[in-house]
Amino acid sequence: MKHLISIEDVSKEQFQEVYKLSQQVKKALKEDRKKFSVLRGKCVVNLFFEPSTRTRSSFEKAGKFLSADVINISASVSSVKKGESLIDTLKNLDMMHPDVIVLRHPCEGAPYTVKNHINASVVNAGDGRREHPTQALLDAITLLERFGTLEGKKITIMGDIVNSRVARSDALLFRKLGAEVFIYGPSPMMPRFPQALGVKKLNSFEEVAELSDVIILLRIQLERQNAKKVFPSLREYAELFGVNRKRLGMLKPETVILHPGPFNRGVELNNDVVTSERSLIFNQVETGLAVRMVVLSLLCGRLEKLKEEIH
Amino acid sequence: MKHLISIEDVSKEQFQEVYKLSQQVKKALKEDRKKFSVLRGKCVVNLFFEPSTRTRSSFEKAGKFLSADVINISASVSSVKKGESLIDTLKNLDMMHPDVIVLRHPCEGAPYTVKNHINASVVNAGDGRREHPTQALLDAITLLERFGTLEGKKITIMGDIVNSRVARSDALLFRKLGAEVFIYGPSPMMPRFPQALGVKKLNSFEEVAELSDVIILLRIQLERQNAKKVFPSLREYAELFGVNRKRLGMLKPETVILHPGPFNRGVELNNDVVTSERSLIFNQVETGLAVRMVVLSLLCGRLEKLKEEIH
Amino acid sequence: MKHLISIEDVSKEQFQEVYKLSQQVKKALKEDRKKFSVLRGKCVVNLFFEPSTRTRSSFEKAGKFLSADVINISASVSSVKKGESLIDTLKNLDMMHPDVIVLRHPCEGAPYTVKNHINASVVNAGDGRREHPTQALLDAITLLERFGTLEGKKITIMGDIVNSRVARSDALLFRKLGAEVFIYGPSPMMPRFPQALGVKKLNSFEEVAELSDVIILLRIQLERQNAKKVFPSLREYAELFGVNRKRLGMLKPETVILHPGPFNRGVELNNDVVTSERSLIFNQVETGLAVRMVVLSLLCGRLEKLKEEIH
Repeated sequence: MKHLISIEDVSKEQFQEVYKLSQQVKKALKEDRKKFSVLRGKCVVNLFFEPSTRTRSSFEKAGKFLSADVINISASVSSVKKGESLIDTLKNLDMMHPDVIVLRHPCEGAPYTVKNHINASVVNAGDGRREHPTQALLDAITLLERFGTLEGKKITIMGDIVNSRVARSDALLFRKLGAEVFIYGPSPMMPRFPQALGVKKLNSFEEVAELSDVIILLRIQLERQNAKKVFPSLREYAELFGVNRKRLGMLKPETVILHPGPFNRGVELNNDVVTSERSLIFNQVETGLAVRMVVLSLLCGRLEKLKEEIH
Repeated sequence: MKHLISIEDVSKEQFQEVYKLSQQVKKALKEDRKKFSVLRGKCVVNLFFEPSTRTRSSFEKAGKFLSADVINISASVSSVKKGESLIDTLKNLDMMHPDVIVLRHPCEGAPYTVKNHINASVVNAGDGRREHPTQALLDAITLLERFGTLEGKKITIMGDIVNSRVARSDALLFRKLGAEVFIYGPSPMMPRFPQALGVKKLNSFEEVAELSDVIILLRIQLERQNAKKVFPSLREYAELFGVNRKRLGMLKPETVILHPGPFNRGVELNNDVVTSERSLIFNQVETGLAVRMVVLSLLCGRLEKLKEEIH
Repeated sequence: MKHLISIEDVSKEQFQEVYKLSQQVKKALKEDRKKFSVLRGKCVVNLFFEPSTRTRSSFEKAGKFLSADVINISASVSSVKKGESLIDTLKNLDMMHPDVIVLRHPCEGAPYTVKNHINASVVNAGDGRREHPTQALLDAITLLERFGTLEGKKITIMGDIVNSRVARSDALLFRKLGAEVFIYGPSPMMPRFPQALGVKKLNSFEEVAELSDVIILLRIQLERQNAKKVFPSLREYAELFGVNRKRLGMLKPETVILHPGPFNRGVELNNDVVTSERSLIFNQVETGLAVRMVVLSLLCGRLEKLKEEIH
């Protein structure tokens, strides 16, 4: 595998390998073994055109724990508007021999635009509202740790679906792994054609609670919808769509809750959810680091080296 | 020792050990030996919610010289206000297996709020106006290098006491080490109850000059008092409270001057002070790096390894 | 060599050594050998008072590929205005034992101001409109790779000469290597006394095309001339001075084009230039990394170590 741009690039077999290996990496990290020489002599560039501390630092740690040289570049789109085109920025970067460029960009499809102009591998760390494949990997693996399989599981993604790259990548991967995927949220936040994503729209939290084995909550991304106010207030959102103690009580006993973070306590979920046994939110972060260590090794052609060292 | 949040956490015995070891580290650095493997496989996160280049880069170098992986995260409080709580930010970070989180935060007590929610050690690199313990360590050690002991020494902290976390941490540590601590400055910058800090207020520079073995100047932190103007102008402050050639001449022969930096030439001190033999200002910076190398090793349980390598 | 502040510091012999060695480094990088231990135990600080991603990341990679500890500090001039003088900032930094400080500062001559106050070596990564010596090195080496010698070559620098540190450093080095240097551009962007730089002014693109073996295009730095509008519009600049397919066709067959980047497609050049065989723009970036690896090794007294490892 040369690039990881869409989760559709990942076959079921590749996914299984990433899954297996990330479990071993997690185990090593838990045992406080977190310095490997797998990517020594490799260079990872984090090129972020949108602010991020979580994803950026996850990739940065993943690279450093594997002994790669990691370079962070935070570019604001405005500075790029000043002159240089995205392709030129990437071609310039590429002349300095990076092995992997981790790219976050506000425009859908940006990684596709650049990948044919450079030698380095591209990891899509979020392109507008389109995709965020490592998030899907870590979400699926977090669920597999709990359930063993996604075959036949019913997973509902709840919140601002239409603006969410996580929803899209998640849905594509979960379905590939055999799950049925549903969506629920305020209607202005629902896609017009859910069937295009292969998901079904639910109409009430009662329905969600009755059928879901997994609920994926999404952050209300105020920064993406300031142009039009799609609901009257945060309090109203919390009241109508936030998961709280009462709604928690409606779920089936084994149902678990995920959230890609950062989450807003008191909006899409409240304290009862965060501290509940059902919440796998912090597991996701831990899994994310391991998954990214595997992905970087994979793209650098060093998976065998990782397997050797991790034992 | 698990965390370093208040200088009160440090016993006299622990201080002596940090002192002794930091002298050896300084010697090594001066001999251009500055790469050790003490913290190989450890991860230090610099999480700064206030801008800082000096303290951040001191911790960053300390970590890197010891072969730790160092991750810098500059968070603006505004971005956190966007949603995620401080505890959630820290819990998320903690899931990525850092060993030490160096935290600067504008709220007093922030490190206490977070420490019980995470596995990593916390170093307080400044919490509002409360404490800055590594600054106190480096100040005390800088003075011990000169005087051998602080027992019976008279130390005056001068300037904006009420807004200063350095003043607070310094006073607590100096007193523990046997010094008598005084304060002096414009009255709106004096604490209402100096006895709570165990310090005595002086009323004129003549008094300061007559009794002090050490003067600690503080930076006039304009950014912390813009709401109310506590003195008419910087020039006026310099005239009434700045140390200059004339005031330098009033000091006892052995009196030395410290400043935590960054200092404003022409305000709290002038060129004559900076270039004077009495000034230990640049020594403080050098000592600071060594102290932080010791503190990081200590919190990671690698003090013995440091001792071995430093010889 | 202790510092690299002006390209005039570099003798012809030193240049030849940098040239030879950078070719070996480039070869190694192309063979995917990019981790050397040459600067292990050395510390490089990137201190940038002006925004830069390109030059900063080039120096950062150069340091990391050689196993130096690299610290990035982005200081805004405004924060420095808050109090600390440049010399004090540098003296403070210097107390933390860096070996090389890579300094970019908006004031002409800033590196000279600081160099005598510190122990570390200084690399000038751009001081206002004065100099940018590593850019001159990489430009000259890019040309030598093509032509073997600059002796007798005719090189025209085109664009905003008066505001360009690249133009100045380039002209000084090219002339030292035996080239004849010309300038061309809108008259408000031309220096009043070109003879002071040892260059000759041309008056039309026809003249440029007829005599030049090399054309160096400069970026239109809108941020430096917002006070006075020196030309009516970017479109007008492109029309009158931009290199496009038609102007490309006027050049001698062997003429090549350089640009220090970032370049503005559609202003000083268009797509036809970027994709043309004549363009060495991306080569410059690759050469720049190699040159900086050599320069850092040189200033740290580790040139012999680099030679050993690079074989």
